[in-house]
Amino acid sequence: MSDPLLFVYEDREYLLAPGETLESDLGVLEVPEDVSPGDTVETHLGESFTARKLRGPDLFNHFERTGAPMMPRDLGLIIGHTGISEGDRVLDAGTGTGVLASAMARAGATVTTYEVNAEFAEVARENMELAGVADRVDVRAGDVTEHLDGPEFDVVTLDTADADTVVERAPDLLVPGGFVAVYSPFVEDTRAVVETAREVGLSDIRTFETIQRRMDFDDRGSRPSTAGVGHTGYLTFARKQ
Amino acid sequence: MSDPLLFVYEDREYLLAPGETLESDLGVLEVPEDVSPGDTVETHLGESFTARKLRGPDLFNHFERTGAPMMPRDLGLIIGHTGISEGDRVLDAGTGTGVLASAMARAGATVTTYEVNAEFAEVARENMELAGVADRVDVRAGDVTEHLDGPEFDVVTLDTADADTVVERAPDLLVPGGFVAVYSPFVEDTRAVVETAREVGLSDIRTFETIQRRMDFDDRGSRPSTAGVGHTGYLTFARKQ
Amino acid sequence: MSDPLLFVYEDREYLLAPGETLESDLGVLEVPEDVSPGDTVETHLGESFTARKLRGPDLFNHFERTGAPMMPRDLGLIIGHTGISEGDRVLDAGTGTGVLASAMARAGATVTTYEVNAEFAEVARENMELAGVADRVDVRAGDVTEHLDGPEFDVVTLDTADADTVVERAPDLLVPGGFVAVYSPFVEDTRAVVETAREVGLSDIRTFETIQRRMDFDDRGSRPSTAGVGHTGYLTFARKQ
Amino acid sequence: MSDPLLFVYEDREYLLAPGETLESDLGVLEVPEDVSPGDTVETHLGESFTARKLRGPDLFNHFERTGAPMMPRDLGLIIGHTGISEGDRVLDAGTGTGVLASAMARAGATVTTYEVNAEFAEVARENMELAGVADRVDVRAGDVTEHLDGPEFDVVTLDTADADTVVERAPDLLVPGGFVAVYSPFVEDTRAVVETAREVGLSDIRTFETIQRRMDFDDRGSRPSTAGVGHTGYLTFARKQ
Repeated sequence: MSDPLLFVYEDREYLLAPGETLESDLGVLEVPEDVSPGDTVETHLGESFTARKLRGPDLFNHFERTGAPMMPRDLGLIIGHTGISEGDRVLDAGTGTGVLASAMARAGATVTTYEVNAEFAEVARENMELAGVADRVDVRAGDVTEHLDGPEFDVVTLDTADADTVVERAPDLLVPGGFVAVYSPFVEDTRAVVETAREVGLSDIRTFETIQRRMDFDDRGSRPSTAGVGHTGYLTFARKQ
Repeated sequence: MSDPLLFVYEDREYLLAPGETLESDLGVLEVPEDVSPGDTVETHLGESFTARKLRGPDLFNHFERTGAPMMPRDLGLIIGHTGISEGDRVLDAGTGTGVLASAMARAGATVTTYEVNAEFAEVARENMELAGVADRVDVRAGDVTEHLDGPEFDVVTLDTADADTVVERAPDLLVPGGFVAVYSPFVEDTRAVVETAREVGLSDIRTFETIQRRMDFDDRGSRPSTAGVGHTGYLTFARKQ
Repeated sequence: MSDPLLFVYEDREYLLAPGETLESDLGVLEVPEDVSPGDTVETHLGESFTARKLRGPDLFNHFERTGAPMMPRDLGLIIGHTGISEGDRVLDAGTGTGVLASAMARAGATVTTYEVNAEFAEVARENMELAGVADRVDVRAGDVTEHLDGPEFDVVTLDTADADTVVERAPDLLVPGGFVAVYSPFVEDTRAVVETAREVGLSDIRTFETIQRRMDFDDRGSRPSTAGVGHTGYLTFARKQ
Repeated sequence: MSDPLLFVYEDREYLLAPGETLESDLGVLEVPEDVSPGDTVETHLGESFTARKLRGPDLFNHFERTGAPMMPRDLGLIIGHTGISEGDRVLDAGTGTGVLASAMARAGATVTTYEVNAEFAEVARENMELAGVADRVDVRAGDVTEHLDGPEFDVVTLDTADADTVVERAPDLLVPGGFVAVYSPFVEDTRAVVETAREVGLSDIRTFETIQRRMDFDDRGSRPSTAGVGHTGYLTFARKQ
């Protein structure tokens, strides 16, 4: 079966594979086998849907969730601060919904990702199919701390409670110049990561806290949103000299 | 000539191509023609340098600058919010130092980027060579607003004063589901972009302001840095339905 | 009638004057005429209420509201940045619920405050009674811009859409060293205030934007609240040389 | 001797008492014994100075400093969140430069403040004279934790490393409805304060972190300042039920 596409009608969008049929109040939509992104397909009632490829933010919305997925801003910051690019070999844990793993893979990286919950790992595998990166993301059910003897990686990304245990091994896990990036919601866990990074001799250790706000522009004027955006997590980056 | 590598000795790093020679207080360093990332090379005084590939953040430091380059956080946010990935065709303006264009190219995109200053464009071309993406980034000296008749793009990224002029044409420039991303330092310019995006019928129009702070962890305790990080620019995203 | 006090039982609090009777599921509470702050009073069922004076934050909760009252943080910032203190003569507009006027009066200032809505002005007067500062706050129904010929003030505080009209007259309204403080939700209005302040020669012109977040401390650790706090208003301060 | 006034000439200001003489490049300024705020006084060269009273922000600039004084925003937030007003009895520690103690006293409170460093306490006493509140602020050289048996206070304000030791006694120190306010730079100290406040049964326990930025308005447009403002301290408030 070919990859599914998004079929969009005004504010509504459906994820459908070529050959699938959708029945809704807009009529019956039969997706042709040879549909391409950009095509328009009509229901039997004459309503037009536009087909489009899934981009990263679409995946964020259409992945099956096994927890709160990493926000686009946070995965973007990880990619920006580590310079994830084509050819990178990445070790990732814990997978969760797989938003970060898929984003890095879509940017060209090959990702090995560990998820302790076997059911979540299975969902993540399906999400990687949807993202079109199943061949580049190896989702392994298991505890990353038991698998730290492999080859070297360009980047290690961690969103786990015991991230400091992995950071302790970062000098062995990383190539020279490689980055470790840790997402941690709490100050105490973040501090443990930073202290471990110092102890094992990593360099360029930096922790960022990011506050992102929407701006509102209406007839009365321009201002930051009165609806605040809360804390997600601290991002710590460190580098092997 | 092969691509240059970074040669790192403690806090010092030098950008050298295979075959090049560096003379410093650490002795003479002759870079072998067959040097590979991860290799160690000694000076004639026995001091060891480690060779490593340039990653995105290294490019930020080693690019020749023709102005203030976009910060890693901002380019990361653009990549995260638009889902830049392999195979994307991107229209970018203005190039500036080329940090954003190179980051998107390194994530697999093919980028056409316009820079009105011809000298800056030439520097940007050299920076693309250094980034290893000269084949994927077409740096054009010129005004993007005079070249809006080409093929469709997956993403349009703008860091120019007259971004709204380009946004006005976004429906013609983008594939369905494609994103326009605008970086603008001032509220007024940002508002003009948002209003134009509304007028031409783009959807999912959102402007973000991002405050990023370092965290300090020392013997006394943990806290946000007392040295603040200032405003860079607003990021506006909009999408073609 | 004497001033009312708060009668507190666990999470519940009632505003009652000496001599008043409260009937609730806790029994009948008869407030003695000679009750003092700190006293404990029992219902006929033996439930104990503690009497206490109203402080500023209590007023914020118990004032009758005629709109969104100024937040404690914003009135605190106005007091902190202008140095409101005993003996100050303050011109204030628009009154609204009267939270700012009452706070300045309770800090010793004598306040003349204008509210264009006559009904709101009447409510504000009652709120000043509750705050115990009716003798220090002169709530006038009317448009402040029609009453700018009076005596000089130490501080002028403005929370009105046409604040710039008043700022234009600030050099006549203020004593040397006096402050004008403007609360304005939108960038455009704020800019108009700043430009007017420059035009009429005020000094020390500064606009602040304040982001205030709660911190959460639980068993898992410490972090900024995941529930964000949104924008309220910009605060602009300027001074007569 | 009468209280000193500020004598202002363009960007320059001098603190002078009636009868004092200032010699500068602007000529000799003899301050009359009967000078009043708002008066203009000329040097023998005919240059005019305007006399003005010191307001809170002037005190911040003219106090002799024995450390980094509390910023106007932080003292304003303390006043706003605790509702400091006339007649309040406040226990304060550590005094430091005395900026907070003087601001509360100028808002009508009677303050007992402890400073462990006897020399700093002496400087603070002189600062209280300058602030005109020497009769309302009792600066005591000593450790507040050794003086927790006195009468009850309406508000307790703490800017000391061992604030939690005092918070532990807050139920005995405060009247019903009274507030304790703690300024603490680090997360760990702040958490200790919060945990102690919970243990001793205080209510309405809230910790705020405040980010305050300047806004820039120039010919190009409006934006938050590119010069960031850093962290000062966390503010924790709690209340005796």
